[in-house]
Amino acid sequence: MAAQSYDEFIDHVKRFSNVEHAVHILNWDQQVMMPEGGTPARSQQVSTLSTLHHELLTSEETETYLSALESSSLTDEQSAVVREIRRQYERADRVPSELVEEIAHTTSSALPVWKEAKENDDFEAFAPTLSKLVDLKREYAEQIDPDADPYAVLFAEYEPYLGLDTAERVLERLRNRLVDLIESIEQSDVALETDAFSGTYPADEQEALCRSALDRLGYPWEHGRLDTAPHPFSTGSQFDARVTTRFTEDDPIDALTSTIHEFGHAMYTLGLPREQYGTPLGQNRNLSVHESQSRLWENHVGRSRSFWEQFLPAVTERFPETSGVSPRAAYEAANQVYPDNLIRVEADELTYHLHIVLRFEIEQQLIHGEIDVEEVPHVWNEKMEEYLGVRPDTDSAGCLQDIHWTHGSFGYFPTYSLGSVLAAQLYATATQEIEALDEQIQNGEFSALQEWLTDNVHQHGQRYTTPDLIEHATGEPLTADYFLDYAERKYGALYEL
Amino acid sequence: MAAQSYDEFIDHVKRFSNVEHAVHILNWDQQVMMPEGGTPARSQQVSTLSTLHHELLTSEETETYLSALESSSLTDEQSAVVREIRRQYERADRVPSELVEEIAHTTSSALPVWKEAKENDDFEAFAPTLSKLVDLKREYAEQIDPDADPYAVLFAEYEPYLGLDTAERVLERLRNRLVDLIESIEQSDVALETDAFSGTYPADEQEALCRSALDRLGYPWEHGRLDTAPHPFSTGSQFDARVTTRFTEDDPIDALTSTIHEFGHAMYTLGLPREQYGTPLGQNRNLSVHESQSRLWENHVGRSRSFWEQFLPAVTERFPETSGVSPRAAYEAANQVYPDNLIRVEADELTYHLHIVLRFEIEQQLIHGEIDVEEVPHVWNEKMEEYLGVRPDTDSAGCLQDIHWTHGSFGYFPTYSLGSVLAAQLYATATQEIEALDEQIQNGEFSALQEWLTDNVHQHGQRYTTPDLIEHATGEPLTADYFLDYAERKYGALYEL
Repeated sequence: MAAQSYDEFIDHVKRFSNVEHAVHILNWDQQVMMPEGGTPARSQQVSTLSTLHHELLTSEETETYLSALESSSLTDEQSAVVREIRRQYERADRVPSELVEEIAHTTSSALPVWKEAKENDDFEAFAPTLSKLVDLKREYAEQIDPDADPYAVLFAEYEPYLGLDTAERVLERLRNRLVDLIESIEQSDVALETDAFSGTYPADEQEALCRSALDRLGYPWEHGRLDTAPHPFSTGSQFDARVTTRFTEDDPIDALTSTIHEFGHAMYTLGLPREQYGTPLGQNRNLSVHESQSRLWENHVGRSRSFWEQFLPAVTERFPETSGVSPRAAYEAANQVYPDNLIRVEADELTYHLHIVLRFEIEQQLIHGEIDVEEVPHVWNEKMEEYLGVRPDTDSAGCLQDIHWTHGSFGYFPTYSLGSVLAAQLYATATQEIEALDEQIQNGEFSALQEWLTDNVHQHGQRYTTPDLIEHATGEPLTADYFLDYAERKYGALYEL
Repeated sequence: MAAQSYDEFIDHVKRFSNVEHAVHILNWDQQVMMPEGGTPARSQQVSTLSTLHHELLTSEETETYLSALESSSLTDEQSAVVREIRRQYERADRVPSELVEEIAHTTSSALPVWKEAKENDDFEAFAPTLSKLVDLKREYAEQIDPDADPYAVLFAEYEPYLGLDTAERVLERLRNRLVDLIESIEQSDVALETDAFSGTYPADEQEALCRSALDRLGYPWEHGRLDTAPHPFSTGSQFDARVTTRFTEDDPIDALTSTIHEFGHAMYTLGLPREQYGTPLGQNRNLSVHESQSRLWENHVGRSRSFWEQFLPAVTERFPETSGVSPRAAYEAANQVYPDNLIRVEADELTYHLHIVLRFEIEQQLIHGEIDVEEVPHVWNEKMEEYLGVRPDTDSAGCLQDIHWTHGSFGYFPTYSLGSVLAAQLYATATQEIEALDEQIQNGEFSALQEWLTDNVHQHGQRYTTPDLIEHATGEPLTADYFLDYAERKYGALYEL
């Protein structure tokens, strides 16, 4: 196939990629800017663009280009592009559009049902909807690959290359080791400084603090923005990657760590090669890798002792009432472990993974038909008891707390833990390869770390599959070792275990 | 043709309408929210969506539906939809896509050339670009209708049904009468109160004032927003119509009237029938009608004595330094005539139209090939002298001041004056049909006027052509009489002529 045809293929790919980027902007606008009354029009706009995207992706043109290119001699980069588009094409093409529409319709009408059930602590009211969603997503998986484990197929939607076996292996190790570690912490006599930042912090002052944190970390404002949203997220392209956060009046650490988390996502996006915008080489690898970037910045940088050494004066300057807080106290406040917390999004660095393990196990059982929807509350509570030693009093604080299943997202949760694990592995390598990294952070110098991440992760886009990217960046396959070492070292020291 | 097919046609129309609405959101975002570095990606997104819109509109499917429907028996509303889509289809289909792309490319690269020429007062640097744009737009008009006056074809892009002869008739009357009226004002011994609002007004306080004005006028915040933009505009749908404004520290009236102007545009959009979103019946009539709504609110309401009677206390409350200003002084400050002003966007209600007449005459001569681009500065300055008695010292303050020609928009300017004229005609009818309208405004009651406008203009969408809509709302064809009566009455009283 002539070079010209490859270029035409890329033009074709850019068309549906641009439609997808437009949808992201519409979604950002809806969550951050749009007045509530705009919903009916926005739903129609997004639905039309999603259909157009699907039609362009699954058009005969795509198949013709792919077949021709697959029997041509291609460079490694060209092969990677063809591999990624082939994958998208096959998954989109195999699912009948009626099923896609039924899923879209069901998830859309599921949202108010879930919200009301959560508000009223009424799982029964949500059960039929959840049951339908499980059936539809099982059917969806079967359409894509009737011979595969349907949960593995769903998981691959979010993380296509790591394989479910890797996820199982990693999460099992986390479960085994973290249950013990958290138990030791509970039995420790050490009580961390918990009230370093007690008090009331006005939202506008918190926002100014978050902006100054982003300044220090090197967020390029000419390519981004900071706004507020009920559920913080980041979205955009290598030219314009935006961050949102939220403010809780009595917890300035929450807004700050959440901002740093989204900053990590945004910097990944901004590190993608600009000249490859609209092609898989200019697109991020999947959710685990994205989450590794946010968690690396949030936890390994933003919750480190060194970070607090250098950043505390900025806090004190803005909030003089915190002038008595020492860097050690701030560090402790940012790193408390709360085993009795029931809510995933409020969990600390350690217990977080047990919340994930629990969901990972339950959603597999649901998709495999090993438990019925009606059993979910009971199984949930049993596992909470087993892994964390607490039992939710209500389903609102239990199996109704997360929105993911309402969206039809089964297989999404494990990518959060895989991201943490990868973050630790990457950070360990960066520490070896960057001279005095910890000292740099203590001095507020973040550019060497940023460059290392761009060189080893961001700039490759989807050039490598996830396992290859990890191998390339760290010299070995994904392993929980680094995260567990980090966790045991850090929390062992904090709680004098 | 079966009813089912009409419904399918509407679904097809909604598809490209939704793509167009998505483009409007991307444009709003670009002007109001997007960081500057986002431009390269945004240009590609908008370009892709514009191409998709064009392809859907000019697809064989559209032609098949239209032909079938045109030989069917249709309701009046269905016929209106078919008429409007046929019109869009023909104009889009007749222009070769290479020409569309060349125009897009040329206008895009013209922008920095124009900006630099304006900055450096260097018309010569812009002349070749302007010349090329004139040629391209002439060719564009010829493709659409080789037998028609090319300027009339271009004008019809912005105002398809009024006809160029109507525009000529109206603008000639404005020129003849306003030149004299302005001369009398210049010779009047009356000096209006010019410094009622002299001083410095911080932007955030001005913004709060604009928000309270929008509150009083009845802007539904659950369907809109107010933001700042260098060039104020309004955009959106009947579910979400947003307003922008800008703040000049020493001129709070400017931000206020500009906000009320954009409010008028937004209320038109919000008054379109919701159930017709995405079809011509849920889409505004053209630019003259849109501008009539903004100018009605800006001038007939926002610059009226009654408005200032009720609104001045809100100003005084926010800016106590204005407590000595009387309603009469505020009214005078909002209605001064400045014949020596050179800049269209800073012009008062009267001289404004002479700025338009001048552009209307020059752009016709350009498109007709009656003058060369090189002659524009000279012709411009001569006409300024003739109509307003002033002569620009520089082309930056003369023929380089507006962006429209750089966008390739020839035929756009007259719609501003037609809008003013229609505003006066509508307001005169509303005054007759609404009991004690002026008193209502003095009491801050705007809902009867709003309802009248929705009933007589907004709710019809594109159900009627522009002349039919005007006839329907006011009982007669478009005429400059009402505007001239209004102008002579109002300014006659102010300047004691």
